[in-house]
Amino acid sequence: MKIQAPRGTRDFYPAQMAWRNHLLDAWRRVSVRHGFEQVDGPIFEKLELYEVKSGPGIVSELFSFRRDQGSTDFAIRPEFTPTLARMVADKANALPKPIKWFCTPNLCRAERPQRGRLREFLQWNADILGLDSPTADAECILVALDLVREMGLGPEHVRVKISHRDTVRHILTRLGVPEEKLTDAFELLDRRDKLDAEAFQQGAARLGLDVHAVERFDQTCRMRYQVGGGLKSMKSALGDSADLSDLEALDEQLKAFGIAEWCEYDLGIVRGLAYYTGTVFELHEATGVERALAGGGRYDNLIELFGGPPTPAIGFGMGDVVLTNVLHDKGLIPDDVMPRPDVYLIAASETGAGQVPCIAAHLRMAGLHARFSYKSTRNVGRLLKDAAASRARYAVIVGDGVMGKMLVDCKDMDNGDQQQVHLDDLAERIRG
Amino acid sequence: MKIQAPRGTRDFYPAQMAWRNHLLDAWRRVSVRHGFEQVDGPIFEKLELYEVKSGPGIVSELFSFRRDQGSTDFAIRPEFTPTLARMVADKANALPKPIKWFCTPNLCRAERPQRGRLREFLQWNADILGLDSPTADAECILVALDLVREMGLGPEHVRVKISHRDTVRHILTRLGVPEEKLTDAFELLDRRDKLDAEAFQQGAARLGLDVHAVERFDQTCRMRYQVGGGLKSMKSALGDSADLSDLEALDEQLKAFGIAEWCEYDLGIVRGLAYYTGTVFELHEATGVERALAGGGRYDNLIELFGGPPTPAIGFGMGDVVLTNVLHDKGLIPDDVMPRPDVYLIAASETGAGQVPCIAAHLRMAGLHARFSYKSTRNVGRLLKDAAASRARYAVIVGDGVMGKMLVDCKDMDNGDQQQVHLDDLAERIRG
Repeated sequence: MKIQAPRGTRDFYPAQMAWRNHLLDAWRRVSVRHGFEQVDGPIFEKLELYEVKSGPGIVSELFSFRRDQGSTDFAIRPEFTPTLARMVADKANALPKPIKWFCTPNLCRAERPQRGRLREFLQWNADILGLDSPTADAECILVALDLVREMGLGPEHVRVKISHRDTVRHILTRLGVPEEKLTDAFELLDRRDKLDAEAFQQGAARLGLDVHAVERFDQTCRMRYQVGGGLKSMKSALGDSADLSDLEALDEQLKAFGIAEWCEYDLGIVRGLAYYTGTVFELHEATGVERALAGGGRYDNLIELFGGPPTPAIGFGMGDVVLTNVLHDKGLIPDDVMPRPDVYLIAASETGAGQVPCIAAHLRMAGLHARFSYKSTRNVGRLLKDAAASRARYAVIVGDGVMGKMLVDCKDMDNGDQQQVHLDDLAERIRG
Repeated sequence: MKIQAPRGTRDFYPAQMAWRNHLLDAWRRVSVRHGFEQVDGPIFEKLELYEVKSGPGIVSELFSFRRDQGSTDFAIRPEFTPTLARMVADKANALPKPIKWFCTPNLCRAERPQRGRLREFLQWNADILGLDSPTADAECILVALDLVREMGLGPEHVRVKISHRDTVRHILTRLGVPEEKLTDAFELLDRRDKLDAEAFQQGAARLGLDVHAVERFDQTCRMRYQVGGGLKSMKSALGDSADLSDLEALDEQLKAFGIAEWCEYDLGIVRGLAYYTGTVFELHEATGVERALAGGGRYDNLIELFGGPPTPAIGFGMGDVVLTNVLHDKGLIPDDVMPRPDVYLIAASETGAGQVPCIAAHLRMAGLHARFSYKSTRNVGRLLKDAAASRARYAVIVGDGVMGKMLVDCKDMDNGDQQQVHLDDLAERIRG
């Protein structure tokens, strides 16, 4: 009987896996060079870990289950931040500060699968904890940008949109949104792009905003100010009572890191998650047609919520699905990221065939990627075609000369050069 | 509030994660050089996928849950083989043969945690499908051995114990075990080391074996024959009617790959899983006190069971837990597998401090692992101690010379040499 994979999940055959490894390797390489250390946690956690952060409403979005004689509910992780908060809270005093951690977990959400959103996906997280400085905010943006740059994207392809919780709160308060409705207002702002004008206006009305205020609200959401110069205009638009000191300090750091040209302020970016406390940001493909490439912000209260000491924190997540879609649309997925064999062994005679396994084992244990033909034919021309199809750098033809003289023919598959080589020199020759 | 991780799972802080990466990288590197291609599947599958292979008894060992309006049961994967069988069956005709796949999934089993067994663990799988040849059996053993060799273990530390389903069946039949009780007999044989003598004898009696037969059965289980020479003794012990042709062909291949000295025949190795059809093998630490390091065998009927065409197949799994325990006991875990920074930047003045972020970003984007101090002190001696603690290869001291002259001091932390370097040459100097 044939059984299908669960919908919204993926099978990674060798070609898809090679791309996934390419991406995971880039996430790791870039994170490490920015001084982040890798961590990971369990694939499932106690359900309450997610309820503490997000409230009981989160449960319907989780794959949850009950174990241990029905006394404990668990869920497959839908995000990594609660695990990170648990780990930091648990060892807070033993961990040198700042904590700079990254991870590349697979996450599962029980959502309806759609473009850019699957039920299982990978997400790169990078977080800086224990450093209450705009340097940390800017460094998180820096490492995210270095990754997209590494994948071939430039400031013309990707925009970092930056906002600040306090600034948006200031605007909403000035427009007349009462304190107790601010969270609802953040959520409305976050869903703005998914709503039509009417639904947005209805939502605003429920917050007690009249048509005039909604218009100003909407205008505010559509303003853009460039990092490195734009804050003055924002200040004059928002009025002197707006405190932009955090953004001013961040502006300086983004310029110092040399990444101002990628960045702009966009007060429409608020991030729906209630736990953000300061800077919030998203990376978007410049045309804006895709979901966010990455999103994050400052969450200075979360470690305390999980039983740890007060700990400033900022971080972001970048999923593999939207990034891959964007790179694919721009033709930036390399043609072939499959590993290329160093050598492909061919038996030209029965004597040679008897020696191929021994030579293959020897080359592999010397660290070389060595393949051999499993076919019983001794037709060298046909086997050389298989060698070419494997994309091997060298083909090594093992014939009768291997006995006594220990000689084989070594063919460079890129330029066609062929030479007799002694078995003792073969690994060295192939290593080049 | 503090919430604990689920029992039997692990948090990977940076040091533990570095070891996990070291192991995962070795699994990947060794697999690739033996010509295996990496695959992966979803973290959860439909529950029936596991029931098809193992029967409904498997359910109690799984973390299972119900979704999609209660119409479908899912389970977190307890092993990869059913996913692999599903993937092969689904694309059987499109996949070039032989299929040589490896994977390194995390797996979850709802077992009681104990030494060598956790509720979540990693497992390296390597499988060869579509090749009905002892070469495939021997190549699976070869790649497993190359991995343990790569980790520092030799034939004095690790034994490959090989058996064959048909040979054991032959012995059991000769002893009088009826056909319909053979599966029970395989299971009894598999649990032999976990049973005391009395329980083993009782089990044997239930199979219809008398005391004399049990003794011969037990003797047979304790026999060892070296690969490369031992099969003749086995033949004379088992009688002429025993068909050892598969083992004879495997023997030749193990010798051809040059790994005979690691391997021995041990007819007590049967593997409890009902689906094995031919060769079965396990890697054990030589003293035998630990659980198996790896286990696998031939499963020629499985792809057909999952709706694919008849497909010969052999493969094995190696978990991270027992391997790590063995390496730890033998002192073979490297002291420090954490990535070493290339450079650690220090500001010797306020002018220098203003340039450090720019220099750090530049070096990182040039591919170098660059860290900098977040401290506000300009005490170079104290900051050099932090540089040393980070294990950076170079410390770069950025002072007033950076303005105008663009000069910084570059100190080799291994030999203490210090030289002035122009910023334009810094990346090159550090790259060495």
